[in-house]
Amino acid sequence: MNAHAPADHGVAADGLGAGDAVLAFDVGGTDLKAALVDADGRIVELTRRPTPLAGDRTGEAVVAATADIAAEFRRAHPGVVPAAAGLVVPGHVDEETGVGVFSENLGWRDFPFRDRATAAFGIPVAFSHDVRAAGEAEYRLGAAAGFRDVVVMAIGTGIAGAIFIDGTLFTGGGMAGEMGHSRVADGPDCACGGRGCLEAVASAAAIARRYTALSGVPVAGAKEVLARARTGDPAAQRIWDSALDALALDLSHTVALLAPEAVVIGGGLAQAGDELFVPLAQRLDGILTFQRRPALIAARIGEDAGVIGAALRAREVAAAQAAEPARAVR
Amino acid sequence: MNAHAPADHGVAADGLGAGDAVLAFDVGGTDLKAALVDADGRIVELTRRPTPLAGDRTGEAVVAATADIAAEFRRAHPGVVPAAAGLVVPGHVDEETGVGVFSENLGWRDFPFRDRATAAFGIPVAFSHDVRAAGEAEYRLGAAAGFRDVVVMAIGTGIAGAIFIDGTLFTGGGMAGEMGHSRVADGPDCACGGRGCLEAVASAAAIARRYTALSGVPVAGAKEVLARARTGDPAAQRIWDSALDALALDLSHTVALLAPEAVVIGGGLAQAGDELFVPLAQRLDGILTFQRRPALIAARIGEDAGVIGAALRAREVAAAQAAEPARAVR
Repeated sequence: MNAHAPADHGVAADGLGAGDAVLAFDVGGTDLKAALVDADGRIVELTRRPTPLAGDRTGEAVVAATADIAAEFRRAHPGVVPAAAGLVVPGHVDEETGVGVFSENLGWRDFPFRDRATAAFGIPVAFSHDVRAAGEAEYRLGAAAGFRDVVVMAIGTGIAGAIFIDGTLFTGGGMAGEMGHSRVADGPDCACGGRGCLEAVASAAAIARRYTALSGVPVAGAKEVLARARTGDPAAQRIWDSALDALALDLSHTVALLAPEAVVIGGGLAQAGDELFVPLAQRLDGILTFQRRPALIAARIGEDAGVIGAALRAREVAAAQAAEPARAVR
Repeated sequence: MNAHAPADHGVAADGLGAGDAVLAFDVGGTDLKAALVDADGRIVELTRRPTPLAGDRTGEAVVAATADIAAEFRRAHPGVVPAAAGLVVPGHVDEETGVGVFSENLGWRDFPFRDRATAAFGIPVAFSHDVRAAGEAEYRLGAAAGFRDVVVMAIGTGIAGAIFIDGTLFTGGGMAGEMGHSRVADGPDCACGGRGCLEAVASAAAIARRYTALSGVPVAGAKEVLARARTGDPAAQRIWDSALDALALDLSHTVALLAPEAVVIGGGLAQAGDELFVPLAQRLDGILTFQRRPALIAARIGEDAGVIGAALRAREVAAAQAAEPARAVR
């Protein structure tokens, strides 16, 4: 899906239910995804385009791109008038102040996303963290529903998670769930400045990058590395196995500390299905002793969880706005 | 303090304040500690004796020993009549059912501590986990007070922690805070059946044991290993350094996942003071990049935190009992 395209999102989109029409934006390391949701909770249109990278002006470029998309949606669907927008981004996000504190992949520091987006759209904006928003979508509408203590991990370009404790999302002041930057090995170097971070070993991007570094063979992504491992390519097997080892080790720490009932895994790597989940569970069983192994479950909403989470947040803001007009953001 | 002795517990004991008189027992891997607290919140008597180890009958032996001590307290202090008792033990504890599910150091499985102790004492009994009770004492009366997100770790015979999230103790169904059994190295073997667990590398007991294994020299404890490291003993330095490395690595995982504001460290190893806290903070700074390094703080209540936590729990049960006599446990 590289341009505007009608969306078919099954369970998740149906699950949004009746409410305000909203705009939703999920800014990823590679793509910017946008959705227009109507009052029935249907995704009227979903579009994806490359995230505009402009060094330390990426924040401005992102807001400008979202405003362009909002205008396109307005022209294409004049009957759907959004009451609020949701904008979610990666990195360290301060939801209270609406500021993108830092993203090592996208380059901003202390960029006031909520204020700029509010000015650009002319409607109230909910600003949040991409993985936490995706986690909330999985928790409210997807695979994490029904658990009290559950971690929702996204493994794609990066690795991060949303932690639900006693049924409530725990943000840790915007800094919790950064298991992608837990040290699990002696290397390689990570974009964060660390060494041997989980994300540098086992993210989908790292699996592709490390395979190419080892074999000299360029690949389109982790999916291709897995396909090569399946056919007996020893370099691909080595990279895939080391990624599984690193993920299992990190999960074992999460289990020791938090004892979650379940770990829901989404993001590109989860598309490997049983080839990921079965050996991961085996490795985790091999590390754990007396601890309960959490259920390892594939995310159900999948790659659109971030934008759906952004829509959920936007609806919260719209509802709060309607309830308290005196505190209007506009 | 090896027999009955008057206690002087400063801040902590004063901090208990007015309330019901209670009995409090903290069953450790080595010692069983008991306290009688009066209505002013003073520890009238505190006693410590070896934990009675009787294989798979250790649960019964522990309850019998606590009943003996209760009788001794009754004879010695007839004017202090406890309204409830608090009993805390290590391992996997199910607080709801009052059952000690499992302790790898003490050998019980599914032992109904609360029911047996209630029958033995004739007063209501609060049953809980030693480290979580100690953590609550530090949270309510000690070094963890004032933080919303804080981990209280006890490093002694074993390693475990109490996790406070948004100001509330998180138990994870009795299984959270077992970072002592996070794998941080390739070895040595751990009592839990695992390999390279933090507890097998960096607990006070492991530091002494590993030093003796490496050097052939028996030592009384981790304190002596540190003293030898200080005088240039290379084996002692190697063991001490590897313990610090393991603790820093484990803390870095905790920080990535939970981003606590502070980590309070108690237990025997915390008595090393700056020789523990300064190099630990340096090592943690060396691993972390964008993450906030939590304040590393020595526990204030110290070695009696478990028994004081047990007293706090006993007072809760006594208060609940007074409020709802129809639901009396007696």
